[in-house]
Amino acid sequence: MKKSLLAVALLGACAGFAQAQSNVQIYGTIDAGFVKRTDQTLAIGKRAANTLGFKGSEELGNGLKAIFQLEMRYEPDTGTQETGSNGAQRPLFQGQSRVGLQGDFGMVRIGRGLTPMQETIMAFEPWHGLPTPAGFYTDLSVAGYTSDPLSLAGNSGNRWSNAVWYNTPSFSGFQFNSAVGTKESNNGPAIVGRGTTTLPQYAANAQATSNPFSLNGTYTNGPLGAMLAYERNAVETKMYVVGASFLVMPELKLMGTYTHQDRDHTFALNSEVKAWVVGANYTMGAGKLLAGYGRKTPDGQPVTKQLSLGYEYSLSKRTYIYLDAARKEGAIGTTAASSTINHYDVGVSHSF
Amino acid sequence: MKKSLLAVALLGACAGFAQAQSNVQIYGTIDAGFVKRTDQTLAIGKRAANTLGFKGSEELGNGLKAIFQLEMRYEPDTGTQETGSNGAQRPLFQGQSRVGLQGDFGMVRIGRGLTPMQETIMAFEPWHGLPTPAGFYTDLSVAGYTSDPLSLAGNSGNRWSNAVWYNTPSFSGFQFNSAVGTKESNNGPAIVGRGTTTLPQYAANAQATSNPFSLNGTYTNGPLGAMLAYERNAVETKMYVVGASFLVMPELKLMGTYTHQDRDHTFALNSEVKAWVVGANYTMGAGKLLAGYGRKTPDGQPVTKQLSLGYEYSLSKRTYIYLDAARKEGAIGTTAASSTINHYDVGVSHSF
Amino acid sequence: MKKSLLAVALLGACAGFAQAQSNVQIYGTIDAGFVKRTDQTLAIGKRAANTLGFKGSEELGNGLKAIFQLEMRYEPDTGTQETGSNGAQRPLFQGQSRVGLQGDFGMVRIGRGLTPMQETIMAFEPWHGLPTPAGFYTDLSVAGYTSDPLSLAGNSGNRWSNAVWYNTPSFSGFQFNSAVGTKESNNGPAIVGRGTTTLPQYAANAQATSNPFSLNGTYTNGPLGAMLAYERNAVETKMYVVGASFLVMPELKLMGTYTHQDRDHTFALNSEVKAWVVGANYTMGAGKLLAGYGRKTPDGQPVTKQLSLGYEYSLSKRTYIYLDAARKEGAIGTTAASSTINHYDVGVSHSF
Repeated sequence: MKKSLLAVALLGACAGFAQAQSNVQIYGTIDAGFVKRTDQTLAIGKRAANTLGFKGSEELGNGLKAIFQLEMRYEPDTGTQETGSNGAQRPLFQGQSRVGLQGDFGMVRIGRGLTPMQETIMAFEPWHGLPTPAGFYTDLSVAGYTSDPLSLAGNSGNRWSNAVWYNTPSFSGFQFNSAVGTKESNNGPAIVGRGTTTLPQYAANAQATSNPFSLNGTYTNGPLGAMLAYERNAVETKMYVVGASFLVMPELKLMGTYTHQDRDHTFALNSEVKAWVVGANYTMGAGKLLAGYGRKTPDGQPVTKQLSLGYEYSLSKRTYIYLDAARKEGAIGTTAASSTINHYDVGVSHSF
Repeated sequence: MKKSLLAVALLGACAGFAQAQSNVQIYGTIDAGFVKRTDQTLAIGKRAANTLGFKGSEELGNGLKAIFQLEMRYEPDTGTQETGSNGAQRPLFQGQSRVGLQGDFGMVRIGRGLTPMQETIMAFEPWHGLPTPAGFYTDLSVAGYTSDPLSLAGNSGNRWSNAVWYNTPSFSGFQFNSAVGTKESNNGPAIVGRGTTTLPQYAANAQATSNPFSLNGTYTNGPLGAMLAYERNAVETKMYVVGASFLVMPELKLMGTYTHQDRDHTFALNSEVKAWVVGANYTMGAGKLLAGYGRKTPDGQPVTKQLSLGYEYSLSKRTYIYLDAARKEGAIGTTAASSTINHYDVGVSHSF
Repeated sequence: MKKSLLAVALLGACAGFAQAQSNVQIYGTIDAGFVKRTDQTLAIGKRAANTLGFKGSEELGNGLKAIFQLEMRYEPDTGTQETGSNGAQRPLFQGQSRVGLQGDFGMVRIGRGLTPMQETIMAFEPWHGLPTPAGFYTDLSVAGYTSDPLSLAGNSGNRWSNAVWYNTPSFSGFQFNSAVGTKESNNGPAIVGRGTTTLPQYAANAQATSNPFSLNGTYTNGPLGAMLAYERNAVETKMYVVGASFLVMPELKLMGTYTHQDRDHTFALNSEVKAWVVGANYTMGAGKLLAGYGRKTPDGQPVTKQLSLGYEYSLSKRTYIYLDAARKEGAIGTTAASSTINHYDVGVSHSF
């Protein structure tokens, strides 16, 4: 008693010193290079998401573990927190902030993180889910879908705040993953949808009309991998994903996804978007060739086509240099007119 | 000489590598769960303040130590820096940022942190100072007082920027703690006070009219703990606190506080607010029951009453699950009309 | 294959656990004290830049290393990220965010950091480059020049975002350092320059008219150190620097710089600014005396003169206390009228 009282006052500067030091692990990625886009000046930019994270686990006995992970995102070219495509600063722990329990039953987590659909699709994308425009992950792999339409504009397209995750263990190669979000509002922009500018279907800072959820199953058997996923976001847009990958030989992996987005809840016309991506990774010693092609077909809109080639050369297990070239044709950005963009990047990526 | 010059240019990427690695300790808390309030949708939220901190100390000889502590605060449900009740983002090191010296004379620190009054009162509050609405700390324990009225709105109610702290060692169970702030302005909002809307008593970004300071003494003797505190903030509101706790038996701790806020400097009418809180903690193996009741009586305003019950179950020394239920009646928020709010939460808290 | 697929889904909370833990080093500085300026109230402030950094290196074989460094800046008196003189919040990793390779060829880095001219000049400044107004680094040492006029206002005066650095190894005491930036825009304010308010020479968020670059050479030989530097920023202002230092005896170091800024590209009149600073450091056991005097002479404007005295007393290799007094006369800030400012500070600085 005596000690605990004094601790309050005197040990303000030392709160926590008494507890045993836990095993917080610091990790991250720093990836920077030169980026050239058809219509823009040569820039310093990134190919991968840049992270600085803190994570740990604690054994609770009986195979149960407490786990947590906090992951910052930043822009190495300017030193800022990660910014969205609209220039808005994203949350400090944009990557994720989750705490949970892991055991024989699987894993339960609560907080903010990638949706299961978005996380799983990375394994079937030839640029392994990197956000570079040379990859397909942020657009064609998901048929232009966003998982988070009701958060602050620019926040993130593939994450949920205010959600709970459950992942099963693996059963004979099968695994199931799920997440469900609350209906909480999160400072989102107004969405006109089937409403009007003055009376939008979703007002600014609106709550979800039903709980968003995301489900998927994966199956692995020797050289074969496969996934099925279904997700419904806060404005009731639905996503269907099927994906597969196959190790033809140890050096060559082929993969593909087919995606169908149904925006019927908010679009009176042209509510369906379909997309497919095929790709290959070919390993040659320390080098790896990446190749991919994809098409996105929105109802009543021009088709988007993308062809990409890339090369990664490993200097170590944690450091590699890369080179990408990609061509994308279609309704880029918000304009309906079709245009063609070439993208090139070369740089270095280091994990720590 | 030669080396030091080269070091400037070549070792830009390595500044600090030369110095011996110090013992920076990373620590923190991640607490997330479900929260339901009478008039709001089910939400993911927190019960405790969420922290990610960096601290350390260095032996200087003769019992003297240099100490520092930097503590981030964040929201695990959205990954953002901690936000105030008005949604404004708080400082990166909202928790504290202090450096100082500790020795036989006690401890001196400078920077930002909890005021001594606010820090000590936690030991006499049945939810051990957690910010959850199920606890009493942020309202009834301090009679609705804010320590920091002239900082950026939403910054913090119980901390000071720009201050110096001094804590004595313990003398036969007695300890004294103090802090004094500068008069510096810190982007605070205008405070009408005894002025008018056009000529407020404190303009926006006003300086303090006198230096804020906070004093308290604590006494511990076997099962008994007691405190006396006095604080005056930057707009010369005064706070008087008396608190006591008693370990009736090893499993049962009773506690209470009585608080008197005098806002005479800024209120022409109804300047006095009085409040009391009584509570109990009862330990049963790995479980702990929390209970509390309190009343706040502002001059000429409806009385606020709060009754709370809680339960914490420890999975380890660092991880526990919790469940709270609370009912609060009175002038909640800024309205003068009386209303009743029920609050429930259930979740997990992990320290690292 | 099987594992890698499952890893995607189940190990979302553990991404990176698989890789060997790297040697991330946490380091930083916390410096806080009392500051008094002639025309301002007594304040808590800083003398040094306050940092919290993360850095590391990885051996790649053949003497090659991958290196990275991420450095936060913060204000210890308020707990915020570092703010510019206009109160604007600077980037999270204001200090630097760079990744690169180091080997027998020297060091190449990419990202954000100090320009070589700004970094080298610190070694010839009597307050070793500290940003305190008692030192000369932020004004007279660089003749009022800013390296980064086209970034967000208040971002930084001596750093570049979007740049590449190359430092040679040392050859017989000679070393060369360089950096070049892209022309990318970075949300900068409009600069009227030789244009008009309605048609400024550089519009808001303008790109650089030519690539900024910075070059310098240093030479060290026994007690002698010397530097030559040339830099051209994004609005084509040019800087010429010459500096030297000499260890008269082991306790006494004398130093000086002469700087010439040529703003002819943006100033129709009074485009030249010249400045010189001389200083001394005298070590007495654990104490060190700092002294300096400097003058800045802008074309057609009042001369600025500064005299400063300081004292540092080391409590250990990582902790010291300090005391400064300085007087600055001239056109302080943006006014053309001459005034005199006295500055005093006393505080503690701790590295970790």
